[in-house]
Amino acid sequence: MLGSTHGTFTTDPRRAHVVACGELPPNAVHGRAATADDLDVSGRPLYAGVPDLDRFFRPASVAVVGASDAEGRPNTGITRQLIAWAERVGARLHPVHPTRQSVFGIPCFPSVADLPEQVDLAVLLVGDPLPVIEQLAEEKVRFAVAFASGFAETGEEGAAAQERLAVAVQRSGLRLLGPNTNLNAFEKFREDLEGPAIALITQSGHQGRPVFTMQELGVRLSHWAPTGNEADLETSDFISYFAERPEVGAIACYVEGLKDGRAFLLAADRAARRGVPVVAVKVGRTETGARMAASHTGKLTGADTVVDAAMRQFGVIRVDGLDELQDTSALLARARPPRADGVAVYSISGGTGAHFSDLATEAGLRLPTLSDAKQTELHQWIPDYLNVANPVDNGGHPVGDWRGRKIIDAILDDPEVGVLICPITGPFPPMSDKLAQDLVDAAEQTDKLVCVVWGSPVGTEDAYRETLLGSSRVATFRTFANCITAVRAYLDHHRFTTGYRSPFDEAPRTPSPSFRKAQALMRPGQQLSEHAAKQLLRAYGIRVPREQLVTSAAAAVRAAGLVGYPVVMKASGAQLAHKTELGLVKIGLTSASQVRDAYRELTDIARYEGVTLDGILVCQMVERGVEMVVGVTHDSLFGPTVTVGLGGVLVEVLRDAAVRVPPFGEDQAKAMLSELRGRALLDGVRGAAPADIDALVEVVLRVQRMALELGDDLAELDINPLMVLPRGQGAVALDAFAVCR
Amino acid sequence: MLGSTHGTFTTDPRRAHVVACGELPPNAVHGRAATADDLDVSGRPLYAGVPDLDRFFRPASVAVVGASDAEGRPNTGITRQLIAWAERVGARLHPVHPTRQSVFGIPCFPSVADLPEQVDLAVLLVGDPLPVIEQLAEEKVRFAVAFASGFAETGEEGAAAQERLAVAVQRSGLRLLGPNTNLNAFEKFREDLEGPAIALITQSGHQGRPVFTMQELGVRLSHWAPTGNEADLETSDFISYFAERPEVGAIACYVEGLKDGRAFLLAADRAARRGVPVVAVKVGRTETGARMAASHTGKLTGADTVVDAAMRQFGVIRVDGLDELQDTSALLARARPPRADGVAVYSISGGTGAHFSDLATEAGLRLPTLSDAKQTELHQWIPDYLNVANPVDNGGHPVGDWRGRKIIDAILDDPEVGVLICPITGPFPPMSDKLAQDLVDAAEQTDKLVCVVWGSPVGTEDAYRETLLGSSRVATFRTFANCITAVRAYLDHHRFTTGYRSPFDEAPRTPSPSFRKAQALMRPGQQLSEHAAKQLLRAYGIRVPREQLVTSAAAAVRAAGLVGYPVVMKASGAQLAHKTELGLVKIGLTSASQVRDAYRELTDIARYEGVTLDGILVCQMVERGVEMVVGVTHDSLFGPTVTVGLGGVLVEVLRDAAVRVPPFGEDQAKAMLSELRGRALLDGVRGAAPADIDALVEVVLRVQRMALELGDDLAELDINPLMVLPRGQGAVALDAFAVCR
Repeated sequence: MLGSTHGTFTTDPRRAHVVACGELPPNAVHGRAATADDLDVSGRPLYAGVPDLDRFFRPASVAVVGASDAEGRPNTGITRQLIAWAERVGARLHPVHPTRQSVFGIPCFPSVADLPEQVDLAVLLVGDPLPVIEQLAEEKVRFAVAFASGFAETGEEGAAAQERLAVAVQRSGLRLLGPNTNLNAFEKFREDLEGPAIALITQSGHQGRPVFTMQELGVRLSHWAPTGNEADLETSDFISYFAERPEVGAIACYVEGLKDGRAFLLAADRAARRGVPVVAVKVGRTETGARMAASHTGKLTGADTVVDAAMRQFGVIRVDGLDELQDTSALLARARPPRADGVAVYSISGGTGAHFSDLATEAGLRLPTLSDAKQTELHQWIPDYLNVANPVDNGGHPVGDWRGRKIIDAILDDPEVGVLICPITGPFPPMSDKLAQDLVDAAEQTDKLVCVVWGSPVGTEDAYRETLLGSSRVATFRTFANCITAVRAYLDHHRFTTGYRSPFDEAPRTPSPSFRKAQALMRPGQQLSEHAAKQLLRAYGIRVPREQLVTSAAAAVRAAGLVGYPVVMKASGAQLAHKTELGLVKIGLTSASQVRDAYRELTDIARYEGVTLDGILVCQMVERGVEMVVGVTHDSLFGPTVTVGLGGVLVEVLRDAAVRVPPFGEDQAKAMLSELRGRALLDGVRGAAPADIDALVEVVLRVQRMALELGDDLAELDINPLMVLPRGQGAVALDAFAVCR
Repeated sequence: MLGSTHGTFTTDPRRAHVVACGELPPNAVHGRAATADDLDVSGRPLYAGVPDLDRFFRPASVAVVGASDAEGRPNTGITRQLIAWAERVGARLHPVHPTRQSVFGIPCFPSVADLPEQVDLAVLLVGDPLPVIEQLAEEKVRFAVAFASGFAETGEEGAAAQERLAVAVQRSGLRLLGPNTNLNAFEKFREDLEGPAIALITQSGHQGRPVFTMQELGVRLSHWAPTGNEADLETSDFISYFAERPEVGAIACYVEGLKDGRAFLLAADRAARRGVPVVAVKVGRTETGARMAASHTGKLTGADTVVDAAMRQFGVIRVDGLDELQDTSALLARARPPRADGVAVYSISGGTGAHFSDLATEAGLRLPTLSDAKQTELHQWIPDYLNVANPVDNGGHPVGDWRGRKIIDAILDDPEVGVLICPITGPFPPMSDKLAQDLVDAAEQTDKLVCVVWGSPVGTEDAYRETLLGSSRVATFRTFANCITAVRAYLDHHRFTTGYRSPFDEAPRTPSPSFRKAQALMRPGQQLSEHAAKQLLRAYGIRVPREQLVTSAAAAVRAAGLVGYPVVMKASGAQLAHKTELGLVKIGLTSASQVRDAYRELTDIARYEGVTLDGILVCQMVERGVEMVVGVTHDSLFGPTVTVGLGGVLVEVLRDAAVRVPPFGEDQAKAMLSELRGRALLDGVRGAAPADIDALVEVVLRVQRMALELGDDLAELDINPLMVLPRGQGAVALDAFAVCR
């Protein structure tokens, strides 16, 4: 059992992790234990333990504190359900109540101290769980569940109460689920379903219900963790645990907010290493959603673009709707790895094939044209005038006889085809019943994925309910869109995990030589001057223009001679922003007299505007590159993040930028560039030379290193513009802006 | 009955319309008859007649040519269904067969010439409908339906056969549905459903089935027009007809290709004027889809961005999935006009409310914060710690008793609320059954829209099947996404029709004075030189820089003096593109010697590159504006279209452009600018002055005028860049490119 991987409830992720990891007993985790060596250079953990929750989900004995059998009391219904659940899982159940002798005929104990045995799990049906937690600690109870609400979801006072509860739990050595949770973990699961299951984690019972209900459609569910306010056990703990369970084929999550960004990344990393897909709905696309989520379970949602990027980095499949969560997790749980990424669309209608193919292609699925030989084979059974190149249109009739199955097998037999999708838009029993049965039969005999869209809005037809849902080998959907979303996630996920290398294995543990140089330049609480910010970049090996900081016109002329004409001159000072708007930048100066005039003008403007300068920068003029922006921003959930985007005025107008959460490797730095809408600018347009993308990637990685080493002391860093020169010529940071914490 | 609104099957939309409209007998249409006065300046019609299809859908008498009752023949099943249908609609049915005496006991006639009466409709179950069409013409039959396939969908030979059929139909005076169609129009519709109905138009029977099947969920369907290959009657004819039918609340379409772009716009315009929503799935988002659609019904899909824009211009609601088609058309058919555009979200779970609100807000729905007074009212029934600001979270319990209905009524009573949406994620009968009933009861007593999302994937629950689907006043959905899509379409559509002014009423009918000047500049089949293209713009009152075309260095210097330094010099010649890449543009020339040097250099390069010049342009240099592109492109379906986008290198990289099909008004020209991602550039960023948007809009409208007047002779026009100067200073076409047909 694991006593204390949970951090304190704190807003400083670094501190939380240091504390948590320092306390980890080596025998408390599966896999590696975290030690000081397992922290990256930013002090964040590189490994997270997996809590052993076997006895939580399958306890030998359970205490129900606050049990009741008095009519009309809410606890009575809950007690009844817990008794039924305990019977199903074979746990001994002991009611605890200060005054009752028995509850539903089961002997009752006045307090947990009076229990006849050390229980694995205590379910707390009391308004204030805090005093009971302290008692449970003494009795060495492993797990507790607190149903009570009125904590962080209600505001500041509740958050303080939750914090007290969290501290008590941490001291106690037990693990707590809740508060503000419910019975979901103890519901009745279907035991008759086989094959890989979905494990479900939700921060709202109602929001988990549709996935749970899929059991009625034949989809196996193994666990449901309703995490509530997560004073202790959090979504990430359950992801890690479920990723290790052999019966779990996919993990489905409904997330409103994350307690700890790094813990989430480590859990997702574990799932990615083990190839277990995590599918998540994450609220917080909009301000409204974020605010509502905060008021519901009292958690921060984090900047949505950052959450989105973090999920993509670690292969978490984010979907928007609960229906997509159901359909995607069901497919990913049950499908075997694809043997090819080609998708074949097969239908009894040319219209359906055209429509489905249109949407599938737009979503990025690859529909290979079937070979001439394959088409000839299919035309044995399908009239010549019908298209069988993919989509395959059988025109209807061949479905009704022996040819139907032949066609399906022939398509599945094609080595380019990894997925066969058959959209059936309406029930027409003479055709659709036979077609459904043929698809099920074929699916039972192939390793390839067979998907069916049952498009009738009614959904009570036998072909759907009995034939299709009766098979765990066919993935059945109700809409084209959900089928396409799920199949894309399936192919993408396998591509992702096949090529996955954990960035945590390669994250730096010790500071680079740059770090000491950089530290000397930091000014806590201050914005650095352009010159100082560039020194910081230079310390990390990022090229800046030749430049000198001067404090007289004569020195400026000398500097220009050394730097080389033409030069750029700029006012430099801490707290100085919007230099261009203020007229504090002069470009293309080609002579000593122009330099002298510029010096005078810049100092005049600065005096007029009341700006304090540390001098005037005389810089080499760099032209003819692609202007980019690279920066570091602090996210409330994940800490420092690295951004790259198009520079210049475009940055503001189009917000064409990609973000990543460290640590990430070169592959992700390259992927960031691919995400930019204006990416083609880097490849060279209108006869321009292709930009030095390697140099840009190198700058992104060096900035990541800065974020890791200086991140918590660096509130913001902005290289704007980074001029990316033609291939082979590098990239130069023309201006930089940095704020220290 | 209408004899001949149908055009010939031609690729020249102008010719088709002139022919069609010229032949229209005035008594043949409801509303205005088309005459020469009803053509716009491009020769395209401004009004379309409405075919009178009453006797098609409800004939008094029907002939079935090729009727059969021989066992095992496909025509036997069809004949049986037609007999049943004729009985339902009260039509006399006459089988026609060369040899049979009777079919299913009904006397049979050897040919249509032998029929005992003049029939309204002939259903042709014969392989080659052509000879029968000719006979039908003699017998003055009004309508025919041809089931036979093997026409345009099979390739060139089939297309020729279809063309012959179309010509015969046109000569005959009858109207034909098909070929390559089916029984859908004659299916059994539920007669017991009340209220406004969906009318369905599909180019594939299978693709219409899900909407048809919605009758089983209580949604009324009035008609189904399976248009097949549209040799004569086309989608647009049915849109026009259905828009005039009082029982039709919304028109749902599945479209693979359109036969005639203008006819579609006129039909959509008619529906928009009458406030009848048209919801359409249109295949062709991708090349694959377009190709498949072409091979299915033999129609062109048109450039998808143009189709998309045309639909938006005329208020056609385009959706992607058949499920969206069902849900959106059902809602729009049945909902009364909104009394406010505010959406209130009400749920029994804070999580559900947060999630739904997040998605709804992201989709652009407005969730107003309820007033303090309203919140106080709601807190009478809902515990204080729950959020009732919108979303309204009742925490569950109030649903189960008398408070449930009070809450719903109180929300509906709020003047800001036009739509109440209640997402129910799972069946929990003690709550969800009562909640469903309360919602239905409340919906029956309000004019406002009440929507429910029944999120259980099972869908066999009584609360869903009986309570919710039993009410035509509640709009019931299965997914958050479809509910949001439909509600957004509902609010948008009413906003659109409320402000709708038909652009056809204001489209120019006679050429402007510019036209004559422009005509003189056109060179059929040639690309114009920059200078000539700018003359064309000038003819339409679009400003170009001061410039002179010169053929000697001395003339260049004189021209520069007149134009005013600094100047730009460019090579000018027909067939000349990529001037910048070839080095044929010199900017910022400030002296006579620079002008002389530039003249020499430009002519040298042209000689070296083998380019024929008509001279060198010496132009005024215009700076400090926002570079835009405005152009005309020919679409295979709609003819000339007008595009506006960001200019410069951005055009190529970001393809940030908006397109419209003429005719359109100033409102649409402005809307085009709002669609641009880089729109903010026009508003002024980084201290830049706002651009002269009025001048830009004026240029777009003048270019539209060119497109209308010259469109069919102008293959392409491209103003790139159009420099939009600061507000009040206008816009100048710095370069232009034009190709004549």
